Amino acid sequence: MVRLPVYQRALLELSAGGISTISSAELADAAGVNAAKVRKDLSHLGTYGTPGTGYDVDFLLGQIRRELGLDREWQVVIAGMGNLGHALARSQGFSVQNFRAVALLDVDPAKIGELVAGLPIRHLSELPTIAASTSPAIGVIASPASAAQDVCDRLVAAGIGAILNFAPAILTVPPGVLLRQVDFSVELQVLAFHVARAETSPSEDASSSEL
Amino acid sequence: MVRLPVYQRALLELSAGGISTISSAELADAAGVNAAKVRKDLSHLGTYGTPGTGYDVDFLLGQIRRELGLDREWQVVIAGMGNLGHALARSQGFSVQNFRAVALLDVDPAKIGELVAGLPIRHLSELPTIAASTSPAIGVIASPASAAQDVCDRLVAAGIGAILNFAPAILTVPPGVLLRQVDFSVELQVLAFHVARAETSPSEDASSSEL
Repeated sequence: MVRLPVYQRALLELSAGGISTISSAELADAAGVNAAKVRKDLSHLGTYGTPGTGYDVDFLLGQIRRELGLDREWQVVIAGMGNLGHALARSQGFSVQNFRAVALLDVDPAKIGELVAGLPIRHLSELPTIAASTSPAIGVIASPASAAQDVCDRLVAAGIGAILNFAPAILTVPPGVLLRQVDFSVELQVLAFHVARAETSPSEDASSSEL
Repeated sequence: MVRLPVYQRALLELSAGGISTISSAELADAAGVNAAKVRKDLSHLGTYGTPGTGYDVDFLLGQIRRELGLDREWQVVIAGMGNLGHALARSQGFSVQNFRAVALLDVDPAKIGELVAGLPIRHLSELPTIAASTSPAIGVIASPASAAQDVCDRLVAAGIGAILNFAPAILTVPPGVLLRQVDFSVELQVLAFHVARAETSPSEDASSSEL
């Protein structure tokens, strides 16, 4: 399933380029995934393509959007408006998908009121009021690590059931709350591990977008 | 292997808290991973712990660092010094691990010379010179999507063999170059998918840091 958004991005690029059908090998190439994985993933969607023609790009996009829950709008709160929070608030993730930032939060008085991507930064203490009126589904934590658990607790207390944490801290959430972690140092470490392994096992095919 | 950095972070927190031995269940709890996975992962390191006592925290940290290739320093170049580039250059990923930013690059004349985390932003055209003198192992792309492939090509041409891409674009690299992608909209989509699934299958245990 984690590959579906990657297929979606590749298909959107192909569709924008006027391509209406695609083979699993072409999609594999565009998405940087091997063709057997593509066929397996798409068969889980109940999609098998037409022999000799391949898959209909727009039909496949529709199926992937439905499977990903993108046939509805997801409201998102971003807590922590430093450089990372600014980058996230302005990211294309909001403009091209069905995600909408409904509030940007911080505790720094100097930041409150600043407009980022058309939204004013508001104080974290306003979260309960904001959540009551907008019912955001997803909370994004872009605060310093030292504040991340407190921010997380506030998001959970406000009824937000899914949290994406960019702070380099391991967070605890109650049962039933979904938590996903993105950590720059972990990403660097995973890459370093593969470089070190490629150096010691040069025979292994190291070219991959699937690390 | 992708869980080793997570164990490392948990063990560093435990070690800082004065804890010298830990059971697999305790480590699982601290890292937000199930205990069977912890035992399996650690057995791959050749580490089995002492029955009734558990694992020695510092010994385990040493084994994980070696396995992750952290017993050496990794030099990193960051290309694209917008908000995301600033956030990455200042991140704790550099201060707590064996990663060191050796160059920050952009093409905006207004940014060249600005100091970020003690390093001046330099022009992307200087990359070949910088790479010749520092031999960075890892290139981080934090540019706009439209520039990402060009930046990637320049990193590869400069001899950098591992690339971490934060731009929302699917990149192509030659065989032998490692590429890892971090995409905010993909992370949001993965989370939305799990929320949608949890809503339709409430019996499934949705609490997890392992999404």
